[in-house]
Amino acid sequence: MVKTTYLSLATRGNTDVQDVTALVARAVEESGFENGVVVIFTPSSTSALTTIEYEPGCVSDLRHLFEEWIPSAKDYTHNNRWGDNNGHSHLRAAMLGPSLTIPFVERRLCLGTWQQIIFIDFDVRPRQRRLVVQVLGT
Amino acid sequence: MVKTTYLSLATRGNTDVQDVTALVARAVEESGFENGVVVIFTPSSTSALTTIEYEPGCVSDLRHLFEEWIPSAKDYTHNNRWGDNNGHSHLRAAMLGPSLTIPFVERRLCLGTWQQIIFIDFDVRPRQRRLVVQVLGT
Amino acid sequence: MVKTTYLSLATRGNTDVQDVTALVARAVEESGFENGVVVIFTPSSTSALTTIEYEPGCVSDLRHLFEEWIPSAKDYTHNNRWGDNNGHSHLRAAMLGPSLTIPFVERRLCLGTWQQIIFIDFDVRPRQRRLVVQVLGT
Repeated sequence: MVKTTYLSLATRGNTDVQDVTALVARAVEESGFENGVVVIFTPSSTSALTTIEYEPGCVSDLRHLFEEWIPSAKDYTHNNRWGDNNGHSHLRAAMLGPSLTIPFVERRLCLGTWQQIIFIDFDVRPRQRRLVVQVLGT
Repeated sequence: MVKTTYLSLATRGNTDVQDVTALVARAVEESGFENGVVVIFTPSSTSALTTIEYEPGCVSDLRHLFEEWIPSAKDYTHNNRWGDNNGHSHLRAAMLGPSLTIPFVERRLCLGTWQQIIFIDFDVRPRQRRLVVQVLGT
Repeated sequence: MVKTTYLSLATRGNTDVQDVTALVARAVEESGFENGVVVIFTPSSTSALTTIEYEPGCVSDLRHLFEEWIPSAKDYTHNNRWGDNNGHSHLRAAMLGPSLTIPFVERRLCLGTWQQIIFIDFDVRPRQRRLVVQVLGT
């Protein structure tokens, strides 16, 4: 009914956008379940998940949107308190959200043709990340 | 434990906001499960889901917010690469997210009195959409 | 397989940010399940959930971001139609989303060290809120 797996990702940080679709699809296939949902979760407060058409134009537009909306160079209370410089990373991650839930049917993710699962690392340095992939099904 | 159904929707595109609450409630009732969660998912990279008070004022405010925040007429790399004009649709959809999870108890969705489930089609033309409704319960 | 509990929260409204991590962790422990996911849902159209590093700097930055992005003092159609003044509360809630799904393994939430679950009440007055906590597991 429940199978847990983990994904290991090396990122460059700074709103690095990675396509994790194939890794999630494999976790679903290897669960042995026919139908259910997969929950992908990042145990971190400076990274997040969503779906997008993963082509360089959309990825570039998305990175520009974040920089315009929640600028990296602005003055943040978090940075002033902690001598840190990732206040914007925290905000971007909180707004996009740490969790994504996707149904699967007959062992296949119900994604659109042009829809990929992306993980975004908003932190300001390269990180080694571990995502939780919880598969619930029958 | 898992029941899959689909919703068919004809949209006008251009940030068309539709109330799908009754359709999701029916899927939950017809699943035969007493308690659980329903996952509504759009297999598309230019549409998304959330909840709102579905009255013309909130819907109008929401559409204005998207147009102000991620303008349709701006220059997007996606459009330049693909001769497309839905770069803003992709960004809006990625930011709002393709998935919504709602608990149900005794066959009823746990929604607030003024809270409806909405599907938003951000694409730039009318579309026929199919949403996945995955019900998990007992 | 499914256990439902509820959290009662007294809020001050006006983008009041509350850390509910301990309450959710207790609901998971008391479910008796070893592995699964917990869905936290707010049955309301003026409040929402996400995760963040819950320290005063991040919380202050988050509240400023919402005020800048979706100002409380602006002219909203919702307010004009209903003689109301919480048009911005509805938009903020719809954008952040009413639902959060978090995996747990061996009875423990899979959260990062600096990652807390927050409930945000965007309404313009103190409210008594009830969140739904649906635990699915084995």
